Amino acid sequence: MNEVRISDLVQPHIRKLEAYTPGHQPSGEEWIKLNTNENPYPPSPKVTEAIQELAGSTLRLYPDPTSSRLREAVAALHSLDSNQVIIGNGSDDILNLLIRAFGGVGGAVGLSFPSYSLYPVLVGIENGKTEVIEFQREMALPIEQIKNCSSGLFLLTSPNAPTGVGFGNEKIEKILKIHSGLLVVDEAYVDFAHESAIDLLRRYPRLVITRTFSKSYSLAGIRVGYALASPETIGFLDRVRDSYNVSRLSQTAALAAIEDQTYFQSTVGKIKETRNKYQVKFQEKDWFVYPSQTNFFFLEPKNVKGEANEEVAKSLFDYLYSHKILVRHFGSHVLTSSFLRITVGTESEMQILNEVLNSWQTTV
Amino acid sequence: MNEVRISDLVQPHIRKLEAYTPGHQPSGEEWIKLNTNENPYPPSPKVTEAIQELAGSTLRLYPDPTSSRLREAVAALHSLDSNQVIIGNGSDDILNLLIRAFGGVGGAVGLSFPSYSLYPVLVGIENGKTEVIEFQREMALPIEQIKNCSSGLFLLTSPNAPTGVGFGNEKIEKILKIHSGLLVVDEAYVDFAHESAIDLLRRYPRLVITRTFSKSYSLAGIRVGYALASPETIGFLDRVRDSYNVSRLSQTAALAAIEDQTYFQSTVGKIKETRNKYQVKFQEKDWFVYPSQTNFFFLEPKNVKGEANEEVAKSLFDYLYSHKILVRHFGSHVLTSSFLRITVGTESEMQILNEVLNSWQTTV
Repeated sequence: MNEVRISDLVQPHIRKLEAYTPGHQPSGEEWIKLNTNENPYPPSPKVTEAIQELAGSTLRLYPDPTSSRLREAVAALHSLDSNQVIIGNGSDDILNLLIRAFGGVGGAVGLSFPSYSLYPVLVGIENGKTEVIEFQREMALPIEQIKNCSSGLFLLTSPNAPTGVGFGNEKIEKILKIHSGLLVVDEAYVDFAHESAIDLLRRYPRLVITRTFSKSYSLAGIRVGYALASPETIGFLDRVRDSYNVSRLSQTAALAAIEDQTYFQSTVGKIKETRNKYQVKFQEKDWFVYPSQTNFFFLEPKNVKGEANEEVAKSLFDYLYSHKILVRHFGSHVLTSSFLRITVGTESEMQILNEVLNSWQTTV
Repeated sequence: MNEVRISDLVQPHIRKLEAYTPGHQPSGEEWIKLNTNENPYPPSPKVTEAIQELAGSTLRLYPDPTSSRLREAVAALHSLDSNQVIIGNGSDDILNLLIRAFGGVGGAVGLSFPSYSLYPVLVGIENGKTEVIEFQREMALPIEQIKNCSSGLFLLTSPNAPTGVGFGNEKIEKILKIHSGLLVVDEAYVDFAHESAIDLLRRYPRLVITRTFSKSYSLAGIRVGYALASPETIGFLDRVRDSYNVSRLSQTAALAAIEDQTYFQSTVGKIKETRNKYQVKFQEKDWFVYPSQTNFFFLEPKNVKGEANEEVAKSLFDYLYSHKILVRHFGSHVLTSSFLRITVGTESEMQILNEVLNSWQTTV
C-alpha cells in the first residue's frame, strides 16, 4: 500500500497553495527590527507581574474557553456588551474564522489591493475565490467599485497596510450603505489613527471590527486579537472557533495590558510623536510617503538621480540590511514595488535609520 | 441595506453546525475536577522559571513562526528529524490542519465511534462528510471495517477516549497495510500507555501521530500540541497553519517541560500508580471498567439492584456533582451512555471520590 503518495492524499487546492510569508524574525539582538510593525517599547510592567504570578500550578488546567474576563474588559473598554466580543489567538485567528464562516457567500471574498497580504492566503486555504478591488496611487477608498462587488464578505484594512492611509468613518459608512454583505474593518493599527469605526457598530449590524494586542499593546509575542460585531455574528464565529484557542497566560497578559490604559496611552503617544517627526524628515528629503495613521511608513525612496522605482527600493532594502536594519519590501505590483514599509522604532532607532538613509542617498 | 440578515450571510453549513461542547471549567477552587483529563500535579518548576524569565520586554516581538527550538527538542525526544515535527496551538489546532489539508479526499473523513468527539465537529466546519466505524462493546479495533473505508484520512485515538483502551502497534500496523489513506493516531494519552506508534513512522510515511502537552506534561493551560509525520505531510500542514500559531510564552513553557524529563517521568509514574490502584478498587465493587492505558477511567456504575444503564450513570453523575466532584457523561449512544469518564486525580482526590461512590451505592 505504500505506493500511495502523500501528494495524492492532500486536497488539490492545498497542493497548489502558496503559503503566507511572515516577516523575517532574526534570533540575534543586534538588528534594528523595523520589518513587522512591532512596538519598540516593552509591554506594561503590569503584564509582566500578571504573567509571573500565573506561571505556576494552574497551568495544568484548561483555559476559560470563552475568555470571559478578557471579553468583559474589552467590551467595557469600547462600551459594548460582552456578547459583541470574540477573542482570538491573534487577530489572524479571527480573520480565519470570518472567512470560514462567512466567506464564499456571494461567490467570492471581497478584498482591496494593497491590503494585508494574509487575506488571500486564508481564502486560498478554503479553496475560495477573491474579488480584488485595486486602489489607485492616491489610495482613496474605491467606494463605487466596492458597491458593485457581489461578495457577502468584504475585508478592509483601516488604517490600511502597507500604506498607512486611514479612511474616515464617513467613507466606511458609505460602504455599509451600498454594500449588502458583511464588512470587516481590520483595525490592527487604529490606536495610532484619528478615528475608529466602532461608533458605527450600533447602527450597522453587518459591520465587524477586528483588533489586536500585537501593535499598540506591545504584545505580538502572546497572540491575542479580537473582533467586535453583532451578537449574532459573534455567535456564528464561536461555532467555528476552537474551544481553547487562547492560553491562560495570553488571556491574563492581555487583561493586564488593557487594564493599564495609562501605560498604553503613553506608549502610543510616544510612537505617534516619533512618527510625526520622521514623516516630516522623509518629506524633507523630497521622498514620497503616505500620511501615516499607523506605526509604520510606506516610503518611496529616491536615488541621487531623483528616480523612484522597484530597483531603487530594492537597493535601499539591501543597503539597510547590510547595516543591520530590517524593513519590508513588497514587490510584484506597481502600487507597492517602489516602496519600503518601515516600522516606527524608538527615537534612537529612527535616528540611526535616518543617518543610514542619508548615507545611502550619497552613495547611489 | 440593513434588511440583509446576518443569517443570510453565513455559510449554510455553519448556520446548521452544532458546536463542540467542552467540559465544564468551574471558576471556584472548591471542586474536585475529574472531568477534562487534566493532570492533577503542577507543571515542572522549570516551566514556572522559564515563563517568569520571559515575561518582559521580548513579548513585544512576534514569536518564532516555526517554533524551531521546541520543534528540535520534540524531534530529539523521539529520535526524529525536526522536519518531521509541526507544533500547534494545542493538538486541536493540528487536528484542524489535518482535516483542512487532507479531509475530503476519498469523499469522507474516517472516524471510529466512540472516540474524541471533536473530530466530527471539525469535519462539520469544513462542510465535510464522515464515515463512522462503530466499535463493539469489547472495544477491539474493527480492522476489517476500516479496510473497507474509502476515506483518504482516518482518525484513530490510541489509547482511545473516552474508553481508555489502548491498541497495540501490531493492530495499527495492520491498518496501515490495508488502508490506503493517511492514518492519524491521536496519542494524546500515550504517555500513560504501554506502547506508542512512533516506531512505525520510519516504515509508514502515511502515518501521522499527534501529541499534546495538556495531559502528561500538566500544561493544558498553555495550548501546545504537535504532530510527527513524514516531511512531506508536515510541509502540507505548514501551508495551512497560521504563521504565528504558538505564542512565545507557550513555546518557552513547552520547551522547559520537555527538557525536564525527570519531573515528567515522576508525575506520569504517580498517575499510573494511582490509576492501577483504583482500577482494582472499582473492579472490586463489581463495576465494569475498561482496562485504562490513560489518565482516566471509563466506568460503568451499578446501582444497589445491580443495574447499569443511562439512568444509573446520570444518577451517579448528579450525586457526584452535588458533592462537588465533576466527571463527564456522554449520553446519546448505547456504547457510552451507561458510563462515566473519570479523570485520575491525586491520591487524596481519589480517596474522596471512592468514599462518595461508596456512599452513593448505599443510597440508590
